[in-house]
Amino acid sequence: MSKFIITFLSDFGYRAESAGVCRAVIKSLAPEVEVLDLCHGLPPFDVRAGALALENAVPFCPLGVHLAVVDPGVGGPRRPVALQAARGDFLVGPDNGLLIPAARRLGGITRAHLLENPEHMLHPVSATFHGRDLFAPAAAFLARGGRLEELGRALSPEELAPAPWGEPALLGEEVAGEVLGYDQYGSLKLNLRPEHLQALGLQPGELVLFKAGAAGDREYSWTLPFVRTFGDVPPGQPCLLTDSDGRLAVAVNLGSARSLLGLAAGAPVRCRRPADAPAP
Amino acid sequence: MSKFIITFLSDFGYRAESAGVCRAVIKSLAPEVEVLDLCHGLPPFDVRAGALALENAVPFCPLGVHLAVVDPGVGGPRRPVALQAARGDFLVGPDNGLLIPAARRLGGITRAHLLENPEHMLHPVSATFHGRDLFAPAAAFLARGGRLEELGRALSPEELAPAPWGEPALLGEEVAGEVLGYDQYGSLKLNLRPEHLQALGLQPGELVLFKAGAAGDREYSWTLPFVRTFGDVPPGQPCLLTDSDGRLAVAVNLGSARSLLGLAAGAPVRCRRPADAPAP
Amino acid sequence: MSKFIITFLSDFGYRAESAGVCRAVIKSLAPEVEVLDLCHGLPPFDVRAGALALENAVPFCPLGVHLAVVDPGVGGPRRPVALQAARGDFLVGPDNGLLIPAARRLGGITRAHLLENPEHMLHPVSATFHGRDLFAPAAAFLARGGRLEELGRALSPEELAPAPWGEPALLGEEVAGEVLGYDQYGSLKLNLRPEHLQALGLQPGELVLFKAGAAGDREYSWTLPFVRTFGDVPPGQPCLLTDSDGRLAVAVNLGSARSLLGLAAGAPVRCRRPADAPAP
Repeated sequence: MSKFIITFLSDFGYRAESAGVCRAVIKSLAPEVEVLDLCHGLPPFDVRAGALALENAVPFCPLGVHLAVVDPGVGGPRRPVALQAARGDFLVGPDNGLLIPAARRLGGITRAHLLENPEHMLHPVSATFHGRDLFAPAAAFLARGGRLEELGRALSPEELAPAPWGEPALLGEEVAGEVLGYDQYGSLKLNLRPEHLQALGLQPGELVLFKAGAAGDREYSWTLPFVRTFGDVPPGQPCLLTDSDGRLAVAVNLGSARSLLGLAAGAPVRCRRPADAPAP
Repeated sequence: MSKFIITFLSDFGYRAESAGVCRAVIKSLAPEVEVLDLCHGLPPFDVRAGALALENAVPFCPLGVHLAVVDPGVGGPRRPVALQAARGDFLVGPDNGLLIPAARRLGGITRAHLLENPEHMLHPVSATFHGRDLFAPAAAFLARGGRLEELGRALSPEELAPAPWGEPALLGEEVAGEVLGYDQYGSLKLNLRPEHLQALGLQPGELVLFKAGAAGDREYSWTLPFVRTFGDVPPGQPCLLTDSDGRLAVAVNLGSARSLLGLAAGAPVRCRRPADAPAP
Repeated sequence: MSKFIITFLSDFGYRAESAGVCRAVIKSLAPEVEVLDLCHGLPPFDVRAGALALENAVPFCPLGVHLAVVDPGVGGPRRPVALQAARGDFLVGPDNGLLIPAARRLGGITRAHLLENPEHMLHPVSATFHGRDLFAPAAAFLARGGRLEELGRALSPEELAPAPWGEPALLGEEVAGEVLGYDQYGSLKLNLRPEHLQALGLQPGELVLFKAGAAGDREYSWTLPFVRTFGDVPPGQPCLLTDSDGRLAVAVNLGSARSLLGLAAGAPVRCRRPADAPAP
C-alpha cells in the first residue's frame, strides 16, 4: 500500500519531542511508510538555511515525499502547501520559500495545492504546531498514494512565495550572486556554480576578483585563486573553490572566510576576471 | 511475529552512543520490530521534563511499547517496571513517576509488573546502564508479543512512585495547580487545562488573576488576559493561552514569561477571577 | 535481497544535513536495507572517541555492516577501506584506526579491501564528503550481499593504520595502560579491564596504586580502592571501578576525576599493588 518514503527536515531541534511527535503522527496514519530523517538541528526560524539543506539533500534522496518544517510564520497568514516536482516527488511544508530550491533541483514545480481539507488534518488544529496537525498528516496521505488535489485548491506556481535567494545574473563581464550562508568552518557559500565562472572564461587555477556589494558607499574586493581544495593555497590565504554540494565557496586555508570577509547571509557578491589577468 | 512498534525517549543525549546501543539491543533481540525515536535530548536526570514529553507524545503514537529512560536513581533502590495502559500500550522504564502521566493519558494503568526475570536481561547487568541491560530487552520482549507477567511479580498501581506533579484542585473560587516547566521561548507550562478555567466560569478574553504560591512570606500576582495567541496582547505583555498540547501556558508577546514570572518548575500557582471582573 | 542491517556512526553532528544525506544515499541504492543510527554527535575529528564509541556499540549490534565516519584526513592520502571481522560483520570507513578496536571486538579482522571501484562510488566524488560519495555507497553494496573483493584490492590487516590506542602490557608487578577519554561526568576511561587487575592478584575492595606517566620530570600517583560503584567511597573521594562497557574507570563520588587527575586522552597510566597492601 505504501508508495513512497517520507524524508523529514525541520528546525525543531533535539531537546524536545516535536520531531518525534510528527514521526508518531505519520506512523499512526501510515504504519507501512518509512520516515528518513534528514536533519532537525537547523538554525531556528532560518528559512534560508532550511531551504539550502533541503536543496542539498533531495538529489540524493529516493523518490518520495519531502516533509520540511521551518516555519517562523506558523499561525499567521502564510499558507500550508504541497507541491509536486517534475521528478515525481512531493514536497510538503509552509509556503515561505522553504521548498522552492529543492523543487527546482527536482526538475521544477509541476503542481501546487493548498492544505485545506479538514479530513487530512489532526483536530483540534493548534495555532503553533502545524508540523503535527497539518504537514505530517498531509505527507502521510501523499505517501500512501493519496491524490494531491484532494488536499485543497490548486495554486499556480507563480502564486507561491519565492525562494529565499535569487538566481545569479551575468552582467557583462561580471556574474552577480548572493551569500547563502556559512558552513561550520566559516566557509562562505554562494548561489553560484562553477559554470558561472566558466561563462566568464575562467578555469580552475586562475585568479578571480570577488567583489562584495556596497557597504555604505564603498565596495570591497578580494583577488582569489580558483582552486580544487583550500590546501592549494598557503595557510591564512583565501580562495574560491567548488564545495561538496557543487556550489562556489570562499574558504581560507586553516582559517575562517567568515572572519575575513564579514559578509552576512543575503549579501550581494560579484565575480569577475582581475584587470591584470590574461585574456581567455 | 512483531506485534508492536517501540517508541523510545531518553535523556541520553546525542554526544555518545547510549541511545544507539539501546536501539541495537532491540534490533538484536527483535529484528522485525520498528523503533520510533521520540527524543533523546531531554534535560539530564529531569524526570519531570521526561514525563511531560512522554505524556505529550503518546496520544499521537500508534499502539505500542513506550520505552522511556530518565533515570537519576539507576543502580539504587528504585525499581525497574513495565506497565500496561487501558488503551493496550505498554510502558517500560524506571519506577520514578516518569511513566505515570503518559499511562493516565492512555486511559490509566491496568497492570504493573517488576522487571526481575533474568531471562529478559542482558548479562552481566551493569550498575549504570539499565537502558541497555534491563529496559531495552524488556521492551523488545513485549513488542514481540511476550506476556507482561513473565517479566516479574505484579505490583498494584498504588505501589508505584507517583507522577512528578499533582492533579489540579478546585478550591472554592480558585483552581490550584503547578508549574510544569518552560518551553524554548520561556513560556511557562501549567498542569491546568482550559476546562479548569471554564469551571471558574471564565471564557477566553476575560481576565484571570494568576497568583503565585508564597515566595518567602509574600505572594505575587499578575492579571492576565486569557487569549488565543500571544499576538493578541501588546509586545512585552503577558497572557494566558492554551498551548499546542492543550495545557494552559503563560506567554509574553515577544518576550519571556520565565524572565517575567521567575517561577521554578514545581512552584504552586492559583487562578481565579479578578476582583473587579464582571460575574459570569 | 537485503542481507544486513547498516549501523551508522559519525561526527557529522546534528546541525546540518550530512548524516541525513548519507542515509538518503543508502536508501536510494538499497531501499530494503535498514539503517540503525548509533551516534552522530561525537567530538569532531576525534578518531579516538569515535573508535571507542564504535567498539562499545558493536557487541550489542546485530550482524551487519558498520559504517563509521570520523575522518579528519578526508581528501588527503588516507585510504578508504572496508574490513570483514571474524563474526561476519563488515566495517566501512577511513583507514585511520577508527574501525580497528571494533573489528577486534568482533573477533579480529579477517579481510581488508580498499574502496577504489568507481562503480560503487557517487560521481563526481567530492574532495570533502566521502561519507556520501564513497563510504555510504560501499556500505549499501555490502548490505545487499555484494562481495567485498569487488570494492578494490585486498590489503593485509598489517597494512592498516593502527588503533588509536595501544594494548595494555604487564610489566613485572605493574600493568601499563592508557587514558582513552572521559565520560560526561568526568570519569576517566582506561584501556584496562578487570582481568588486568586480577593478573596482579587484586580483588575488588583492595587498594590499587594508580600511577600516572611522567609529567615533566615528576610522576603522580593516587591510591584508589577498587570498588563496585562510586557510591562505595565517601563524597569527593576517587576510586577505581568497572564501567558499563567493562573497562576500568577512575570516578570520584559526586565529583570529577577529570578535575582531580587532569590527565589528557592518550596519557600513559600504570596500576600496581600499594607497597603496604597485604600479599594476595
